[in-house]
Amino acid sequence: MANMDSTAPSSPRDTSCPVHLNKQMQLLHTARNTASFEPFELACLIYGGADVVGNRRAALERVETLIGTRDTSQIPRSYANMNREQAYDEGLEWGKAAFEDGIRFKHDFFAFVTPRFQLVNSSPFGMNTVMFEPAIRLSASAEQQAKWLPLSKSGKIIGAYVQTELGHGSFVRGIETTATWDSDTDEFVLHSPSTTSTKFWPGALGFSCTHGIVVARLIIRSKDYGPHLFMVQLRSLDDGRPLPGVELGDVGLKMSYNATCNGFATFHQVRIPRTDMLMGHASVSHDGTYEGSSHFTQLSYSTMVMVRAIIVKNVVFQLAQAVTIAARYSTVRTQGMGPNGLASAETCLIMYQSQRLRILTLTAKAYAILFASRTCDAEYDALRKQQANGDHTSLPYVHALSSGLKVWTTQTAADGAEDARKCCGGQGYLAISGLPEIVASVTAATTFEGENYVLCQQVGRYLFKCIDQLMQGKPIDYRMAYLAAGYQKWFAASFAASSGANITPCMAFGKEFLDPNTQLSIYRHRALRTVFKAYTAVRSSTKPPLDAWNENMMSIISAARAHTEYMALSFYIKHVQSLPTATSPALTTVMARLCSLFALSNIINPQTLDAISFVEDTHLSSAQLDTIRGLVNELLDQLAPELIALTDAWDFTDASLCSALGMYDGNVYENVMNWIRQIPMNKRAWEENKGVYQPGWKDWIEPVLKAKL
Amino acid sequence: MANMDSTAPSSPRDTSCPVHLNKQMQLLHTARNTASFEPFELACLIYGGADVVGNRRAALERVETLIGTRDTSQIPRSYANMNREQAYDEGLEWGKAAFEDGIRFKHDFFAFVTPRFQLVNSSPFGMNTVMFEPAIRLSASAEQQAKWLPLSKSGKIIGAYVQTELGHGSFVRGIETTATWDSDTDEFVLHSPSTTSTKFWPGALGFSCTHGIVVARLIIRSKDYGPHLFMVQLRSLDDGRPLPGVELGDVGLKMSYNATCNGFATFHQVRIPRTDMLMGHASVSHDGTYEGSSHFTQLSYSTMVMVRAIIVKNVVFQLAQAVTIAARYSTVRTQGMGPNGLASAETCLIMYQSQRLRILTLTAKAYAILFASRTCDAEYDALRKQQANGDHTSLPYVHALSSGLKVWTTQTAADGAEDARKCCGGQGYLAISGLPEIVASVTAATTFEGENYVLCQQVGRYLFKCIDQLMQGKPIDYRMAYLAAGYQKWFAASFAASSGANITPCMAFGKEFLDPNTQLSIYRHRALRTVFKAYTAVRSSTKPPLDAWNENMMSIISAARAHTEYMALSFYIKHVQSLPTATSPALTTVMARLCSLFALSNIINPQTLDAISFVEDTHLSSAQLDTIRGLVNELLDQLAPELIALTDAWDFTDASLCSALGMYDGNVYENVMNWIRQIPMNKRAWEENKGVYQPGWKDWIEPVLKAKL
Ligand SMILES: Cc1cc2nc3c(=O)[nH]c(=O)nc-3n(C[C@H](O)[C@H](O)[C@H](O)COP(=O)(O)OP(=O)(O)OC[C@H]3O[C@@H](n4cnc5c(N)ncnc54)[C@H](O)[C@@H]3O)c2cc1C
Ligand SMILES: Cc1cc2nc3c(=O)[nH]c(=O)nc-3n(C[C@H](O)[C@H](O)[C@H](O)COP(=O)(O)OP(=O)(O)OC[C@H]3O[C@@H](n4cnc5c(N)ncnc54)[C@H](O)[C@@H]3O)c2cc1C
Repeated sequence: MANMDSTAPSSPRDTSCPVHLNKQMQLLHTARNTASFEPFELACLIYGGADVVGNRRAALERVETLIGTRDTSQIPRSYANMNREQAYDEGLEWGKAAFEDGIRFKHDFFAFVTPRFQLVNSSPFGMNTVMFEPAIRLSASAEQQAKWLPLSKSGKIIGAYVQTELGHGSFVRGIETTATWDSDTDEFVLHSPSTTSTKFWPGALGFSCTHGIVVARLIIRSKDYGPHLFMVQLRSLDDGRPLPGVELGDVGLKMSYNATCNGFATFHQVRIPRTDMLMGHASVSHDGTYEGSSHFTQLSYSTMVMVRAIIVKNVVFQLAQAVTIAARYSTVRTQGMGPNGLASAETCLIMYQSQRLRILTLTAKAYAILFASRTCDAEYDALRKQQANGDHTSLPYVHALSSGLKVWTTQTAADGAEDARKCCGGQGYLAISGLPEIVASVTAATTFEGENYVLCQQVGRYLFKCIDQLMQGKPIDYRMAYLAAGYQKWFAASFAASSGANITPCMAFGKEFLDPNTQLSIYRHRALRTVFKAYTAVRSSTKPPLDAWNENMMSIISAARAHTEYMALSFYIKHVQSLPTATSPALTTVMARLCSLFALSNIINPQTLDAISFVEDTHLSSAQLDTIRGLVNELLDQLAPELIALTDAWDFTDASLCSALGMYDGNVYENVMNWIRQIPMNKRAWEENKGVYQPGWKDWIEPVLKAKL
Repeated sequence: MANMDSTAPSSPRDTSCPVHLNKQMQLLHTARNTASFEPFELACLIYGGADVVGNRRAALERVETLIGTRDTSQIPRSYANMNREQAYDEGLEWGKAAFEDGIRFKHDFFAFVTPRFQLVNSSPFGMNTVMFEPAIRLSASAEQQAKWLPLSKSGKIIGAYVQTELGHGSFVRGIETTATWDSDTDEFVLHSPSTTSTKFWPGALGFSCTHGIVVARLIIRSKDYGPHLFMVQLRSLDDGRPLPGVELGDVGLKMSYNATCNGFATFHQVRIPRTDMLMGHASVSHDGTYEGSSHFTQLSYSTMVMVRAIIVKNVVFQLAQAVTIAARYSTVRTQGMGPNGLASAETCLIMYQSQRLRILTLTAKAYAILFASRTCDAEYDALRKQQANGDHTSLPYVHALSSGLKVWTTQTAADGAEDARKCCGGQGYLAISGLPEIVASVTAATTFEGENYVLCQQVGRYLFKCIDQLMQGKPIDYRMAYLAAGYQKWFAASFAASSGANITPCMAFGKEFLDPNTQLSIYRHRALRTVFKAYTAVRSSTKPPLDAWNENMMSIISAARAHTEYMALSFYIKHVQSLPTATSPALTTVMARLCSLFALSNIINPQTLDAISFVEDTHLSSAQLDTIRGLVNELLDQLAPELIALTDAWDFTDASLCSALGMYDGNVYENVMNWIRQIPMNKRAWEENKGVYQPGWKDWIEPVLKAKL
């Protein structure tokens, strides 16, 4: 049975085998002990030090105790049975606990993620920190900030970020809601002129928020100034009623995130004071004069950069949760007589090379995303400091970086979580495995905050602009030095304009492919080739620019992907090469191998997106690819004993994993049956009706059995 | 508002534009009329004739009317709010209606699929036709068949196929449930010796079935004869109670299929008559003598072939449903100012080349799967006839074919449905889009009835056996002629054993790539290269056979995939080239283009699995790949005007699509808001509480707002 206090122990590791372990528990116990490093050391690296790990554990313990999820012998409520209302109620309960714990104990462990790392629950109280306060900070005047931020931070108001409409998501310029200045009363009048202008999707909007930052077209004396932000009180703080003219409601069941009330809103001539427009970078004075900062657009881009950086950070943990469950299950489940049925006894799933490749490469990807998110955060922080001094020069680079990483990490995590789920066979299809909910929640990130196909093209546009600059002999951002260097080689030399090909075979062989510089050179070559090829095709096209772009859209998207993957690999390598000096040699070796596995497996994995672009110009020969395949096999064998430690290091509690397959004890089959026997339908049938589900039997089954057809 | 009778009209098409259409409805109406062929003609091709299409429509109308789903202005119950019990109740209601309609009107439209094509609902009454009767037909004696089949067909008993256990799914030989012959009473005693032996997963087992065909180890006088099939009554026909010693229950919420009760079962010394073992090919006499047919294994393979053929047929419609929704939505939703923002007005999603590529290639794949399933069915029927005459020689080929197709079609449909969902942006994440349920249900097919990674290796084993035969100078199945021919060329000539490469560049250029023979030669080359390469690597390895297999597992899987894709393309081409003579020239052209799009896009689409294997030996040059990219773009432009007709042709009713985004009228935004306003949470809040969800506000939100922190 699952243990009530099942957090991984801190160093030193307890390696003695407890008595009374059944077969599955023993298998996991043994696999835990084959690692060459202490998971606690890695946990400190992940979370930023032993004190953080400790505080985080304490916070989880408090909150999980309060909301009653810590006793994992009880089936989680959402798996037992739950309708729309109950899911939302649970979200409120959990959200409140997490929100208040953060305030009381002065931490932000749950600021961007919930007690379950967005899993199952995404809190209706969560928008304050994720979007509401950032928008205030970036777009409100100093005075407005001083007024609203304390209210939001202390939960005196509950916010939503209300941008998307039924008719417009990606294309923000197209939104239809109007905020018309009324000179008589010096107010703005908010109005929804059509069905498509219905605000749609904002988290917490349905029934939880009191205020919204509403994006609406600013209209002054019939002149349309385009979308601006307005602070709008939506509900009475006394009784929660929507204010007059405001219609609010829930958008209903979604793939996931059902613990919050993504909502819709319509405005019927709703009046707000003029001073409630966010006036940090644009203002309307009492006589209706509009003044906009020249950096208005840049600043709205900054918000997006920040939110994308948060998304990147979040999906790390969603993918890591899925991988943790799959790794533990694959260690304890035996199935079949080994490869080609040739073993003498049943084999653990993780012994099959396909399973190993899938789970270990996903592990490597989770760490790749973690390190990419570190760089993304650091660049954003640096940008903010520069912007505070009025220097916006870094914005285009950081914006393109965060967009590219958002696309790459969300797609990687979404596809990866689904593959981890499939790795658990039939059991991964059960709600109680925790995996369906993880998969359904992480896949949303490919769509929200910049749909991936839309963002990819923004990265493409940035790359093209860089090359335009280079063509004009102008310098580009120093962090894009590889492109400038490539430009010298590819363009200045003889770039075969027609085919875009410039065949410079990779000269590495054998173990040289384990050298990070070799790996980087392969990714760099692919990025340069695809970027310059797409650029040439678009710029040399004789068609109208719109058609030239459209016709080459897939090449532009490929180029953006190749560029981003090169950047991600370079960040990963950089971080792995600059681990804190105190890092143990064992962990250093494991992290280097994991990074190599990431770099190499991505080339030859059949599931890799656009792998063809690594090889179509014969940069890598068939023999070299086979060498890489061989090295990947070796890395898998070296890393297999480290798998459980690599996943334990994420330090997920059993309550936050919320998975009968993924518990720390490995006691999967008992845990499954224990939870299933608690399902109300089963309990009621057996306690009240000797094993019959009476309504179904009486209403439908008996009539079929007795029908004369 | 959605129309109550929204089935596509039959020929002649109504091309006049009705008045009072809003913008979205007009867009769809217009797009419907750009097609060069009549969708009804294609519908007849899909379903097998005008009479079938008509009967099918009538059956849908009857059943949908009975269960009350035909008025699509009402939000479907499962989207409004539904817990575990309600989902199951709905499954029973629908299942009964479909089952009884089939009996009354003598059709099998719902035999393998439900009124929603397995979407949302998978009937608890459905196992009779899908697995229970086939198992009886294939494994029971003539006498047993005569007894049980009529009972099952008329619904006098309700069956489940009870094979999988908690501990064993893929590896059937490992199951633990025992059926021990008791010489005293001439009975079998069924028993579950462990937690892992709990029967787990069978559809309808939880609360619906009365009987199960239970797979258990046959034990006679302590001798273990391995898994055999037993007919076991599980519940009383009078009151539905589980018989003594039988524990039955539901496995709880799943990703999808919640309208049926996949269940678990344990047996505590449950006695059944000896004569209830299925004795078609193995028997136990009253003195305990065991006699097994020499074809015992072959015959159990036959069941799997049949079930896999059914799966292939089902996923066609699941993918087609997802594509229909995405195609319609992409036609009516406008978003953004066109490619690179260069258009003068907002653009329909389908104008973006990436969206076009995604949706049209998915359309092409749906038709590819349809035609593959035709061949699969035909081969199975032929096999059954041969087997009836004692000739089992076709079995290995047909088994490998159905296994390969099962893997390829389920993965294609699962990935495709998710991509179609993503094509609808945020709205595709709403339950009312219908897409989350389709995605969640189709992905199960990659796991059940032979997990895909397991099946791939079986295909690999078959291919290796064929080559072993060829090596020994023996003939192989005539349908594998391409492999025999390839063997001559690849092996008999100088096959570079080390690299496995045999570089014979493709000589096609320009429009030649539109030639089906060229396309086939590319797929054939890839199949031969990967198959012979994997074979050589495994057979020439110096490692123990188990390690040799494991080390090359990914190559074996690639080879199996390449072989299957070659076969699938050849079937597709064959069917397109032999359409009924009466087929209109317009439709003939469209089908040929769609087939070309399938063949060519699969090579260059960034999402293609293992695309690298098309090019890594430089069979296709970079320039040729660019030619193919250009041709794909042309095909997309040619096919875009046909898209709505290509999806209308599937003839889905609005009720069976069950999607606010995918209705025939195209009135997406009104349909969305109409359904959402009917959600109980919204209705209750507004009708009873002026827009407040009272429990949440009182219990959780007010306390946060008023807290002193
Ligand atoms: C769970 C969830 C939470 C959300 N929370 C909030 C919130 O708190 N506040 C808020 O304001 N909004 C929120 N949203 C809305 C979200 O921001 C939008 O759904 C998202 O921006 C995508 O936009 P869309 O839905 O308009 O997609 P669309 O733009 O309609 O995309 C549909 C399809 O069209 C394609 N497409 C669109 N434009 C182009 C182009 N230029 N080139 C090529 N292809 C194109 C896309 O690739 C996609 O395949 C949320 C959404 C979800 C799912
Ligand atoms: C919706 C649904 C309905 C079902 N209905 C029924 C039913 O009606 N009756 C019934 O009896 N059963 C039913 N099942 C059970 C189903 O048949 C099994 O789940 C399926 O066979 C997969 O087996 P498994 O769960 O043991 O997966 P596992 O074999 O445990 O697979 C888990 C992982 O291990 C890997 N793996 C396993 N073996 C190998 C190998 N040899 N080589 C490489 N990798 C390997 C797989 O690739 C996978 O990644 C149903 C399942 C589902 C999800």
